[in-house]
Amino acid sequence: MLSKARIKFIKSLQLKKYRKQEQCFTVEGEKSVLEVLGSALVVKELYATADFIERQKPVVNRFKGAIVTVTEKELASVGEYATNNAALAVVEIPENTKPKPDAQEFVLMLDDIRDPGNLGTIIRTADWYGIKNIIASEETADVYNAKVIQASMGSFVRTNVYYTKLTDYLADNKLPVFGTFLNGEDAHTFNFGTGGIVVIGNEANGISDEVKDFVTQKITIPRYGNAESLNAGIATAVILDNIRRH
Amino acid sequence: MLSKARIKFIKSLQLKKYRKQEQCFTVEGEKSVLEVLGSALVVKELYATADFIERQKPVVNRFKGAIVTVTEKELASVGEYATNNAALAVVEIPENTKPKPDAQEFVLMLDDIRDPGNLGTIIRTADWYGIKNIIASEETADVYNAKVIQASMGSFVRTNVYYTKLTDYLADNKLPVFGTFLNGEDAHTFNFGTGGIVVIGNEANGISDEVKDFVTQKITIPRYGNAESLNAGIATAVILDNIRRH
Repeated sequence: MLSKARIKFIKSLQLKKYRKQEQCFTVEGEKSVLEVLGSALVVKELYATADFIERQKPVVNRFKGAIVTVTEKELASVGEYATNNAALAVVEIPENTKPKPDAQEFVLMLDDIRDPGNLGTIIRTADWYGIKNIIASEETADVYNAKVIQASMGSFVRTNVYYTKLTDYLADNKLPVFGTFLNGEDAHTFNFGTGGIVVIGNEANGISDEVKDFVTQKITIPRYGNAESLNAGIATAVILDNIRRH
Repeated sequence: MLSKARIKFIKSLQLKKYRKQEQCFTVEGEKSVLEVLGSALVVKELYATADFIERQKPVVNRFKGAIVTVTEKELASVGEYATNNAALAVVEIPENTKPKPDAQEFVLMLDDIRDPGNLGTIIRTADWYGIKNIIASEETADVYNAKVIQASMGSFVRTNVYYTKLTDYLADNKLPVFGTFLNGEDAHTFNFGTGGIVVIGNEANGISDEVKDFVTQKITIPRYGNAESLNAGIATAVILDNIRRH
């Protein structure tokens, strides 16, 4: 059973302010909780239904912390999702670690991705294409938001999202910087080389002027119809697919 | 000013049941309303702020129907979106028209895309890649849902979405049918030819067994990392990009 104090604590983690204060976030649902239990992230508290504990015995037994058995109703009431019938983990926020890519690595840079669903999808897509590091502007959605965790479909455990002032990071960078624009090189024929930073712009405004100055190569995704632009997550996927096929 | 009866009518169109009954849907926001006014779709009612009417004079003057001037507050209260400061159009639902693609056309087939955001993004992406026809299962989200219209970013006016029982459509089809699976031909090297049907499966369950039987060519998007799968919209974009580059 959940005490009033735990309910209040878990619910508070839906707000960034309290996540920052407590340095914790929540992970909900069977798939995501299993991913986090199997990862290097530190699970501080685990709330699970009797069914989940029975079904996932080997995983649950390996978990060293205390497990609180809860009902589906309790899970739904403390979490962001009404349909969670499995488990909720309270997880320690890892350190904000600056990636130091070499010339053999591609990293993503997010210039104000505001929508949590977009950010989650970008993390999932990055993980599919073997991208381990994402550098995000401070205005980008919080990766520890429950909607981001959900949309990433477990990929958040394999992807380091580093928040920083992008221009500070770029001032110190020697790798090529690729950005999508309407008047760049054709992504279908351009040779992206072996590594670099791929900048994805804000949903409404694209790449900001300050970041634009650091772009060393403009890229264009060829258009065959009439839409004015592509969704930020879609553009990320198409660029990464074109990078990997070369 | 909006009468109580109009408020009730417009609000009712947020529900599929009433859209079906009235054969109307709503389009919100400056960009989408301008797209629909410039399209072949029939706009039955137009509600706009004085600012919008002033700013978009040439477009507004070409509109033959009556225009009701409303405040931003009124727009926000009748629509799905709180931030609409421009206009809302009530538009006639066009006939459900069966596409008859020839061997030179690619069409999309959606096998139960349930999320309105995903459907809107797929329509926008299809429009970018020059796809004019989408065949959707009856369980696919309703294209006239305000969230779909919003996510399509105006592309709904250029894309025909036809709802039908997919197996009936496929039983009558002679074009190649492409579907994404884990054990298919590499999308990076496969030759898609000049036309055919590209099936996109449900977000959680992929392509259904009944539809699978009609797939003539299994395709796989190569994976370079560890995510288990891609979002349905992302997979659509990557397949279409690979089709067009050949």
